[in-house]
Amino acid sequence: MSFTTPSSALTDEGVAALLRAAIDAATAMGQPQCIVIVDQSGVLLASFRMRGSRYLSLKSATAKARTAASLAAPSHSVPDSAKLLLAAATQNEATGLRGGLPIRVGGMLIGGIGIGSGSGEQDEDVAREALAAIGADLP
Amino acid sequence: MSFTTPSSALTDEGVAALLRAAIDAATAMGQPQCIVIVDQSGVLLASFRMRGSRYLSLKSATAKARTAASLAAPSHSVPDSAKLLLAAATQNEATGLRGGLPIRVGGMLIGGIGIGSGSGEQDEDVAREALAAIGADLP
Amino acid sequence: MSFTTPSSALTDEGVAALLRAAIDAATAMGQPQCIVIVDQSGVLLASFRMRGSRYLSLKSATAKARTAASLAAPSHSVPDSAKLLLAAATQNEATGLRGGLPIRVGGMLIGGIGIGSGSGEQDEDVAREALAAIGADLP
Amino acid sequence: MSFTTPSSALTDEGVAALLRAAIDAATAMGQPQCIVIVDQSGVLLASFRMRGSRYLSLKSATAKARTAASLAAPSHSVPDSAKLLLAAATQNEATGLRGGLPIRVGGMLIGGIGIGSGSGEQDEDVAREALAAIGADLP
Repeated sequence: MSFTTPSSALTDEGVAALLRAAIDAATAMGQPQCIVIVDQSGVLLASFRMRGSRYLSLKSATAKARTAASLAAPSHSVPDSAKLLLAAATQNEATGLRGGLPIRVGGMLIGGIGIGSGSGEQDEDVAREALAAIGADLP
Repeated sequence: MSFTTPSSALTDEGVAALLRAAIDAATAMGQPQCIVIVDQSGVLLASFRMRGSRYLSLKSATAKARTAASLAAPSHSVPDSAKLLLAAATQNEATGLRGGLPIRVGGMLIGGIGIGSGSGEQDEDVAREALAAIGADLP
Repeated sequence: MSFTTPSSALTDEGVAALLRAAIDAATAMGQPQCIVIVDQSGVLLASFRMRGSRYLSLKSATAKARTAASLAAPSHSVPDSAKLLLAAATQNEATGLRGGLPIRVGGMLIGGIGIGSGSGEQDEDVAREALAAIGADLP
Repeated sequence: MSFTTPSSALTDEGVAALLRAAIDAATAMGQPQCIVIVDQSGVLLASFRMRGSRYLSLKSATAKARTAASLAAPSHSVPDSAKLLLAAATQNEATGLRGGLPIRVGGMLIGGIGIGSGSGEQDEDVAREALAAIGADLP
C-alpha cells in the first residue's frame, strides 16, 4: 500500500505558453477572447481579458475551464438534457457551453482551459490551438 | 507596438442626462422604472429606483445594462436557446431579457443602460429615449 | 457641456508586457508571486498564479490591484488606523496591504497592479518592475 | 387597536434633488464623490459614481447610507470601540465611517444618504448640503 502517488503539473512556462498561443490564435481570428486556465483542482492559474472581448465571458470561460478539468472532457460533452440541471446542482459553476477543454499531457490530466467571447466553435478552436502549442493531447 | 490606446468615457453630465431622460420618459409613459447605467467595464455609474417601480427590477435592470455593455448589443439579442445557459454560466450576471442597450457614441462603446419594471417593450423604449437625449448611436 | 470625455486604456500588448515583466522579476527574485492586473474600473484584465506562490494570495493581490486603481495611489497608502474599517466598509474589497500600485501613463490613470506571495516589499518591487517595463509613471 | 399607520417616503423629485445637490456640492468642492440614497428599509433608491471618484467608495457609501438609516443617526456616531464588532456582526453592512446621515423630514425618518471618496469631513459636508436642498432635518 502506498500513501502517495506521482502527479504532474503545468510549469509557469507551460501556463504562459498556453496564454500566449490563445491570444495569438484569437488575434489571428479577429475575435478578442477571454482566456482562463485552471489546474487539476479547478483553481485559477491564469486569465486574460483581451481588449474588445466581452467582460461577462470571463465568468463563462472560467466555468468552461473548470467544467473541462472536472469532467476530464470538453465542457460541451455534457448531454443537452443535463446542462441546466448540472449548472443548478453546482451553483452555476459547471456549464455545458462549448469552449472548455481538459489539459492532458501524455494522458495525464493537469488542468483545463476555457475560452469565451466568440461563437462556441471559435472558442473551442482557440482552446485547441493553445493545447497544440504545448504538445498537449487533443480531445 | 503600443501599450495604451485612446478610449472614451461618459462625463457626469452625460450620466445625469441619461438618468434624467429615462426618468422623464418613464413618467410620461406612466410606468415607474428602475434605471441602471454602467461603464464599458460593466461597473455601476448610476442607478435610480422610481417610486412605484418593482424593487427586484433593480437586479434585472443591472443584468440588462451589464449584458448590453458586454455584448455591445441589446440584451435581448442573445438567442432564445442560449439565454438560460448563458445566465447560468455567468452566475446569473448575463440576461437575455429585453430592456438593455449598449451606450455607443460615434461608434465607440462607452457603457450600457438597463431598464426594468415595465413590459420589455416599455423598458427598451425608455432606454432608447435616454440614448437619444445624449446623441448616442441607436441600435 | 459635453457628454463624453477622452480616456485611455491598456492594450493587450500592454497587459501582456506587465504580466511578463512581473513574472520575470519574481523569477529573478526567487519568490513566486500571484499577479493581478485590473482596468480603471477595477475589473480584471489578467492574472497569473506562479507555481510555488500562495494560492490565497490571488485574493489579496486582487484586493491590492483594485485598491490601488480605486485610490489612484499605492494600496499601502491607506492610513493604518483606517485599514480595517475600510476593509469592512467595502466588504473586504479594499486592503491596506503593501503590493498594489496604480497604473498611470502620462499622468492618466488606466488601472492597477497587485502582487502577492512575498514580503510587502518584494510584492511592491515586482509591481514597480512591471510598471517600468511599459514606461508607466512610478508612484 | 390599529393595524396600519401613516408613513412618509421620498418622491422621485426628492431623490433627484438629493442627488443633484450632492453632485453640485462635490463639484464645487473639487472632490468627485460616490453618492448613495436608500429608503427607510435601507434599500437602494439611487446611486451616482462621479468621474474621478473611487469606485470602491460605492461600497462604503452604501454602507454609510444604510447604517445611518438603520441607526436614525450619523454613521460615525457608532462608538469607536464598537465599529469593528458591529461591522463583523452585520457581515460588513454596517460601518462607523463618517459620511452617512439619516434623511428625516419633520422628524420622520424616511431614509439615509451616504457619501464616499473624500475625507470623512468632505463626505459629511456633501451629505449635509444634499439634506439642506430638500429641507430635511439636519442632525
